[in-house]
Order: sequence, then C-alpha cells, then structure tokens
Amino acid sequence: MTTVKLHKEESRKAFLDIYPSLVEEILSELRKYNMPADAYEWTRESLLYNVPGGKLNRGLSVVDTIRSLKGDAVTDDDIFKASILGWLLEFFQAVSLVSDDIMDGSITRRGQPCWYRKENVGMVAINDSFILQSCVYILLKKYFKATDYYVDMIELFHEVAFQTELGQLCDLITAPEDNVDLDKFSVEKHRFIVIYKTAYYSFYLPVALALHMTGVKNEAAYTEARNILIPLGEYFQIQDDYLDCYGDPDVIGKIGTDIQVNKCSWLINQALAKANPEQRKVLDDNYGKKDAGAEAKVKALYAELKIEDTYKAYEEKSFQELTSQISKIDESTGVKKAVLTEFMDKIYRRTK
Amino acid sequence: MTTVKLHKEESRKAFLDIYPSLVEEILSELRKYNMPADAYEWTRESLLYNVPGGKLNRGLSVVDTIRSLKGDAVTDDDIFKASILGWLLEFFQAVSLVSDDIMDGSITRRGQPCWYRKENVGMVAINDSFILQSCVYILLKKYFKATDYYVDMIELFHEVAFQTELGQLCDLITAPEDNVDLDKFSVEKHRFIVIYKTAYYSFYLPVALALHMTGVKNEAAYTEARNILIPLGEYFQIQDDYLDCYGDPDVIGKIGTDIQVNKCSWLINQALAKANPEQRKVLDDNYGKKDAGAEAKVKALYAELKIEDTYKAYEEKSFQELTSQISKIDESTGVKKAVLTEFMDKIYRRTK
Repeated sequence: MTTVKLHKEESRKAFLDIYPSLVEEILSELRKYNMPADAYEWTRESLLYNVPGGKLNRGLSVVDTIRSLKGDAVTDDDIFKASILGWLLEFFQAVSLVSDDIMDGSITRRGQPCWYRKENVGMVAINDSFILQSCVYILLKKYFKATDYYVDMIELFHEVAFQTELGQLCDLITAPEDNVDLDKFSVEKHRFIVIYKTAYYSFYLPVALALHMTGVKNEAAYTEARNILIPLGEYFQIQDDYLDCYGDPDVIGKIGTDIQVNKCSWLINQALAKANPEQRKVLDDNYGKKDAGAEAKVKALYAELKIEDTYKAYEEKSFQELTSQISKIDESTGVKKAVLTEFMDKIYRRTK
Repeated sequence: MTTVKLHKEESRKAFLDIYPSLVEEILSELRKYNMPADAYEWTRESLLYNVPGGKLNRGLSVVDTIRSLKGDAVTDDDIFKASILGWLLEFFQAVSLVSDDIMDGSITRRGQPCWYRKENVGMVAINDSFILQSCVYILLKKYFKATDYYVDMIELFHEVAFQTELGQLCDLITAPEDNVDLDKFSVEKHRFIVIYKTAYYSFYLPVALALHMTGVKNEAAYTEARNILIPLGEYFQIQDDYLDCYGDPDVIGKIGTDIQVNKCSWLINQALAKANPEQRKVLDDNYGKKDAGAEAKVKALYAELKIEDTYKAYEEKSFQELTSQISKIDESTGVKKAVLTEFMDKIYRRTK
C-alpha cells in the first residue's frame, strides 16, 4: 500500500471510530424520554443501518478541509470537531437517501436492501428519515452550542436542506420513471437539479462547515468557495452522468441505467439541444423505455451527435476555468487555494 | 352571534389574512434560486393546499397566549409576531399531517383528498413535507433573527420535532393496521404516544413560543407550563379517544373507527388492564377487525368493564389535579395562571 492510501485508510478508521459515541448520544436522549423498548431498538437499528456504510467521502472531506485550512497548526481537538461535523453531513445525507429511495422506488442501497424495503419497515421509513434529520440538530447542539458559530451552522444546515429538497422536487417532477416527456427536459433544468440536489450539500456544505469551524466570518470567503465548489459539484454530477453511459461497468461497479429509467441526465439534454426533428423522434420513441433495444438506439444517436466529444470539451473547459478561478482567489478572506485544489484533484478525470 | 364568538371570528380572520404574505416570502426565495416554473408552481400549490384549511386552533393559541400574557399592554406588533409564530406552528403541523397520511394510508384530510392522493403527487409528497419543514426555519430567520430569543426558538422547534417524530414512531410500530397484536399495547405506551406525538407540539409548543416572545428566560417558567400542559394534552387526546367511541357522530362530525383500525386508544388499554383471560380473548378475537359485528363485541365488553365510568373518573380527577396545580403556580417566573386556565376551559368537557 502507498503512504497516501495508508493515510487515507487511517483517517477513515479514525473517523469511523467516532460514530458509536454519536449513536450513544442519541440513544441517551431516548432513555431520558423513557422511550418504550421496541421503539428504542428500532431507532438504534435505523442509526446503524442508514448512516455509516457509504463511502464517507463527504464526511471525510470536512476533516480534510480542516487539515488544509489549519496546516501544521491543526490539533487533535480540531480533528475531533471536524469529524463530528463530517458525521452530521453523513446524517444529513442519510435523510435524503432513506426518503429518496422510497420516492424513486429503489431496491438496493450501498449493497443492501433499501431501509424501506426491509421487512416490517415500509412507510415507517419516512418517519425514520425525519428522525435522522433531527439527529443533526441534537448533535450540533450537544457539541457546538458553546461556540460563536453555532447559529451560523444551524442556518447553514437549514439552508442547504431547503436547497437539496428543491433540487429533489425538480428532479422528481421533471423525470418521473412512469411518464416520459422530454419536453420537460432542458439544459437549464438539468443544471438546477444537479446544483440544488447535489452540489450544495456535497461540495459547498463540507467546506462551509470547515470555514465556520476555523472562525471565518467574512462573507466573501463563503462566496469565493461557493463560486468554485458549485461549478465543481455540477461537473461531478455531469461526470457521473457521463460514466453511467460510457464508464467501464467493472470499474464504476454498476451497469448504467439512466437511459432506461428516464433520468434527466446531462447527455440526453445535450442530445436534445442538438437533435434535428428526425433525431428528436428517435429520442422520444426510445428514451425511458425498459428495453435494451431502445437503449441501444439512444446510444447510437448519442454517437451520431458526438455527445462524447461534447462532454470532453466541456470537461476541459470547466477544468481550465476553475483552475484559473482558483488561482485568483483572495486568501486574505480566510479561504485557501489548497482546499479547492484538493477538491479538484479528487474529482477531475476520475474513472469511477 | 355572541360577542365572544364574534371576537373569535375576527381573530381568525386577522390570522388568516397574514398567510398570503408568508407564502410570498417562500416564493421569493424560490425566485431568488431561479427555480424552474413547474417546480415553483408545485411548491405554491403545496403551500396553499397543506397549511391553511384546518381549525387553526394551535396557531391561534399562540396569539391568545400573547394576549393573556401581556394583557392591556399588548401591541399590534405583538399580535403580528404571535400570528407569524402561530403560522409556523401550522406549518410544523402540516409536515406531520402530510407525511402521517402517507404512513397511515389515509384517504381524506380536512374534507379534501390527502395531498399524496392527489393526481401526480404520490410519493413526491414526502419531499413536499420536508419542504414545509424547511419553511418553518426560513420564516423564523426572516422574522426573528434579530431577536434575543431566536436561537431558543430554533432549538424549541428542533426539540419538539424530535419528540413528535418519536411519538409517531412508537404509534406506528405499536398499532399497525395490518398486524393486530394487543400484547404490544399498554397504558404506559399509550401515554408515551399521546404525550410525544400530540401534547408537546399542540399544547407545550404554542405557550413556550409565546413565553419566549415575551422575553421570559427563567427555565422554571417553562417547567411550570410544561407540567400543566403535557397532562392537559394527554387528557385532550384521551378525550379524543373517548369521543371516537362515545361521542355523537353528528356533533363530532365523524364516525369513530378506532376499534376497527387497531388504534392504540386509551379505551382499549384500560380494557386490557381490567380484562380477565376470557374477556381478553374477546378483545384478541375482535379488536382491529374491519367488521361491524366484531366492533360491537368490543363495545359490549367496554360496557361490561364499565370503561365509560373509568373515563369519567379519570376526567374528574385530572381536572381537579390540574386546577389545583395551576392555583399553586408561581407567577413571578413569568408564566401566568390565566394562560393555563384558558387552555383548560377550552378543553375540558368539550363535546366535539
């Protein structure tokens, strides 16, 4: 194993080691309320099933950002606090995953059945996802009430929750699996969905939390960070859409289904923007159909329209633009170029 | 119309008149985000469909409490602020109603189809209920950020949301409609459910909001209020359970279904506590069955066990205890006896 990989494994292990104490904090609240045993046990299971078990990239990115921001001055207490915030971000994400899986009718998540698909759970999962959301604020109060950035963090979580919900709404009504209507799609709508549903919470939120934790009060620092991180998050999701169609299933670990499930993907929106009436008819007739033949026709049209080239050009252009933007950042506001460069390095030209 | 009724009608009208400006506040956020038109319109409809249209008792009780607390010194600004808080409580309730209706498989709500039963809505309602919750905090920030009780109110909403979710969880797993198991019922569990699912948000929350608004910081005032309001809320729900079985359908406006839908009602828990093995068998065989004959057998057993008398005795006892408790309240903490007496008067011996 390389040193970098070893360091990554250690970080991940240290991060994971903190989780049981957060579960214990929540359970101690339930004991205080004299919650009946079966409901207590239910909540414990939900906490263990739904929060850990993912890649933890978002949670770990809070810790990485603190390391970048504080450099050699970073303390064990910083790492501990950043880890708690990282877990709050993982709780935050779990809220969406549990409820989105119900809304999307998904079957599995992180290699196990979706929570709502477990025996006896069903629609109770809706309430469980609200409970996971409450945990964010209970834990935030427990660990950060005494800080002078406590209110800023509460407001940040509220704002990003709202943004994520608006993105999810737009996604749900634009691309329902059972009612394909490509007239609802557009490059602008795709952009709203990926920025609101994913970019704010996955990219802006971890860095904004870390900035608050290091005492940055200057609004300009948050704006600088957002101006890089939102386009970066947008690129990340577009790349995800690209890999769904063109990635190697052995490398990305799944077989893409976007075309068959009527996903409002970047690729279809680019194709719609370029298609002549005849090509548009092929898309109308074949997109969103659970049929390998129809999917192949869409893919053939993507090839005809050179969508892969469009993607490569977009990737190159966005990389250049963001690199240039980062180089112009005013570090005196409190944000550091290195934080954003590290995020860039993790994302650009990934293959999975 | 009597003067009291007229006053009540005027209060209600003034309260309702404020709602459109709150909708506008939320919509202006969406415009700021450049939300696509169909998702914008969807959110507007959800706000108009799900928040107003109820009895507004909870929202109005914040205004009534401010009137009681401030007496003749009450200002138009006080009434305005209390009305906003009242609406936040109505938003808060709407979150539960929209999501509970999905979990309970309900058909109608407030004389119209449940939101999730509307054409094209379905499971998107889950996300809509999260959006309604976000509205509470966006509006709280908008109207109360500059106050010195802003954080206390955020924490209060968070705490009561968590409590309400825990009550809902316990209710859902104790009394699923499709799996009757009276072993799961108990007087203690019923108590947990009614206190956490209903009493905190319906009784404690409006008064606690009003206390914060009038600048009460003494923790003892909140404890005094809670010690009256939680048992009062418990009584309110028990009375609801009683009226479901013994109320006049023409007066309460619905035909009771608790026995047929396996509700963890106060009545069944009292019956279970009193039943001998033979009587228990009657309950096991007939409770939670969608069958009028089975329901009649349960009702006959309630009569045999004199459950109505048990209820009357409980009602009398709880009324005496709360009256005595209120008389001993220390008003110097900031809470007023009149506030609690008014709540009592609204609740005790109601027939609907």
